[in-house]
Amino acid sequence: MQRARTVMRPSAPQAGAAYKVGYRSDRGGENLHLYRYEQKVKQAFANIELCLKGISGFQHEADFSRRAQAVAREYLGFELPDVLLADAWIKSVDVGQLYVWCVFETFRRMSDEFFTDKPLVGLDDENFQAFIEKCGFHTVDVSPCADGRLAHVIRYVLRLPYKSVRRKSYAGAMFDIDDSLQKWVETEMLRYRESRPNSVDAATRYLKAAVYHYSTSAPDVEGCAAHGSDAVKAAEGALSRLQAFQQGVENSFCCGASIDLLLIGIDTDNDAIRIHLSDADGGIDAVRYVDCSDVYAVANAGDTSEEIYNVVAGLAQTQGIAPAEGMLRFVAKLFHSNMLQVDYVREYYNGRYEDIGHQERFIGMGIGFEEIQLRNLTYFAYLKTVEEGARDLDVGIKIFSQLNVSRGLPVPVVIRNDYHGQVPGARERAVDRCHQLDAALKHRFAALHDKGMLHTLLMVRDCHADACVETVGCSLALNGQEKH
Amino acid sequence: MQRARTVMRPSAPQAGAAYKVGYRSDRGGENLHLYRYEQKVKQAFANIELCLKGISGFQHEADFSRRAQAVAREYLGFELPDVLLADAWIKSVDVGQLYVWCVFETFRRMSDEFFTDKPLVGLDDENFQAFIEKCGFHTVDVSPCADGRLAHVIRYVLRLPYKSVRRKSYAGAMFDIDDSLQKWVETEMLRYRESRPNSVDAATRYLKAAVYHYSTSAPDVEGCAAHGSDAVKAAEGALSRLQAFQQGVENSFCCGASIDLLLIGIDTDNDAIRIHLSDADGGIDAVRYVDCSDVYAVANAGDTSEEIYNVVAGLAQTQGIAPAEGMLRFVAKLFHSNMLQVDYVREYYNGRYEDIGHQERFIGMGIGFEEIQLRNLTYFAYLKTVEEGARDLDVGIKIFSQLNVSRGLPVPVVIRNDYHGQVPGARERAVDRCHQLDAALKHRFAALHDKGMLHTLLMVRDCHADACVETVGCSLALNGQEKH
Repeated sequence: MQRARTVMRPSAPQAGAAYKVGYRSDRGGENLHLYRYEQKVKQAFANIELCLKGISGFQHEADFSRRAQAVAREYLGFELPDVLLADAWIKSVDVGQLYVWCVFETFRRMSDEFFTDKPLVGLDDENFQAFIEKCGFHTVDVSPCADGRLAHVIRYVLRLPYKSVRRKSYAGAMFDIDDSLQKWVETEMLRYRESRPNSVDAATRYLKAAVYHYSTSAPDVEGCAAHGSDAVKAAEGALSRLQAFQQGVENSFCCGASIDLLLIGIDTDNDAIRIHLSDADGGIDAVRYVDCSDVYAVANAGDTSEEIYNVVAGLAQTQGIAPAEGMLRFVAKLFHSNMLQVDYVREYYNGRYEDIGHQERFIGMGIGFEEIQLRNLTYFAYLKTVEEGARDLDVGIKIFSQLNVSRGLPVPVVIRNDYHGQVPGARERAVDRCHQLDAALKHRFAALHDKGMLHTLLMVRDCHADACVETVGCSLALNGQEKH
Repeated sequence: MQRARTVMRPSAPQAGAAYKVGYRSDRGGENLHLYRYEQKVKQAFANIELCLKGISGFQHEADFSRRAQAVAREYLGFELPDVLLADAWIKSVDVGQLYVWCVFETFRRMSDEFFTDKPLVGLDDENFQAFIEKCGFHTVDVSPCADGRLAHVIRYVLRLPYKSVRRKSYAGAMFDIDDSLQKWVETEMLRYRESRPNSVDAATRYLKAAVYHYSTSAPDVEGCAAHGSDAVKAAEGALSRLQAFQQGVENSFCCGASIDLLLIGIDTDNDAIRIHLSDADGGIDAVRYVDCSDVYAVANAGDTSEEIYNVVAGLAQTQGIAPAEGMLRFVAKLFHSNMLQVDYVREYYNGRYEDIGHQERFIGMGIGFEEIQLRNLTYFAYLKTVEEGARDLDVGIKIFSQLNVSRGLPVPVVIRNDYHGQVPGARERAVDRCHQLDAALKHRFAALHDKGMLHTLLMVRDCHADACVETVGCSLALNGQEKH
């Protein structure tokens, strides 16, 4: 039903028109499955405002609490904390607190469902490791921009298995070199020590990808805030980090240690990607790339992987790029997947998202958030401390100042720390870190917090046990009633 | 000359009397060499107050600047910034700023000399790696308390080569488990990949030691502030971290991965250690240990390593502890070294330091400080962010509020980030991190900073190149004149 609302709008722009209509059949019904999941979750968040708007309208009437709960059950599927309704007859109902409470509760429910039902596990996920090893890689590590319009890059835009791909988001895709070096070291150690994911005898490398973004319909406004909406600067910035990481590995370790690199750009209007392919000698250019629209234009219906591979190889050649065979095979798969996503946007969003700008519902900060695989739901900053992640948080708060605070709604922030439950004290340290981040966040944005315009939900998760999240704190003071 | 001042004081307590007089000859003159270095550096810092006291006395007299510079040259060996002297005739000379400037300059000179002349390289340093490998270890990682009275633990108290032993200080020796796990991973990776420091075929393990402290003469006052001056709590706290680290390694990695542990206590009155030996099964007890004074009492003049080994083995046996042979050999060496240090304190400080309480000259924070190997000179907090190291810094600022602020002198803080120059951009990131720490520190202690009672010197160092430190910022505004 939701689909009709969006797709049928006659005035929607026809940005997808350049693509052949109906090119790719939705084999296995994956697009429909992904769309239903996306709609369900996003509608749950969208219903919050509809619900509260309704409730606000009769807040001074008799029998308010009972009626409000009935409306909440109908729109949201859960009841509101009585304590937030009880005093509405004295002073106005605190819509801001109700709003934040509902966002947190909706996220908690969505998260629980994600880890219990695993709705985004792909049919082909278990073959992924064997595939990348054939391509010459043992690990794929992706750093997208923290922008919520890229939050679906792993599972939707590139159709990669979210459990097998490392994702750490940073504003402007300007990832932390030292954090990446540390991950590389850990990865290689496990290969040597435990042959995980494969043995060092295999001639595979660590692949690091950075994902920047731009908007073709509003390039100067809706591009990457961290790079002043300049697509070339965004590409150059991400590329400089990739190169520094590669050189860091090469200079710090002997015996030919290196990694492979990939620079990817996303048009946030329609999810089409461009890939800056590394040459056989590893060189990447910020302005030479293969665009999905070109692959789409040349490839034919029913093409095999081999045929798409040949199309991409041909396009690379016209750019004067001759990537290694394995890299080309991997990239061909990404284009193949991305064509499905382009179709997805064409079919369900008429070729261009209506929300080409920011429409995130909350900020996520910390370590974790495997369950966040949807577009424009979360501004996510991967960070260990507010001190280090300050710039990323500043961007996030700026976005939400426009989205929420300007209308009188608080900024909901979910603070998260996933931990490895097999390490003694890890849970306690994760909880402590949540509280540390909470205090630092409120300190940094004290003016917002003092006005009640910043609220936090603190969560931890034992990722070793693949458990559900556990709520360990919340800024909403509900006198012990119906706490998250 | 300095020695006479301390040793000959007839009223000094005879805490060392329990030790046999003249037991151990100072073979190779190491104690004398170490003492001369210690005196030279500490006197340089002590001279600052003497010098400024003198200068303050004639600040309103004619020809003040010229006379002040003459006094500074005589006491300190360098001149003061003219800008801090020029306006003394208008308002009083700012002794606080002069003091901080002199502390920073003295440290800078001491640091340069350390990296240029390498005064604390030991004669036997190059044989250390072979020795620990014989004992069954490939890496020795020590976390002492951040307290300045333990800052000499590596080179003086235990006589270990400071370049070969990892040292990361934390208040109460409550080291960061995740930081240690990361270091373990890196160490094992290098063994596999580059056979550094030895190959994984060698049956050696990573040895993690934690060092807590207490004061026998003033146990309730001069013990560890982080553990309320309770020696048992300090031992238990450090032990709990050691055990968590060990279990973290065991639970995170398969194939019998583990580490060895050592818990060491130091009497900060006289530098005598006690070692809580791990049993053959790795178990350590917070209240069972071998004390250096017992080893000292039993061992005979001219004992060989083998004989000391037997003494320690016998003492361990009376405690019901039967450590592995290699561990016992390593510990016997530590006791051997510590007996030299006990003699050092007996000979040069009459068996007990006069400054049994805090007398640090500055706070060091960040990553690095290889040149800090002297007692009671620096309160050192190893940290990546103020946010994570907040508790350690709170302890440090509290100490300096007593030492300095109560007398009207500012707290000098040296912010340091060592970096690996072979990684592209590493220097720039280290500089950025210095500024980040600087801002966060001033923010956390805003009241002190606003009163001019907190000053910082920002330094980085390329540890890969074994270079001297480089000053990249200072809170003293000298209008570009004679900046650090």
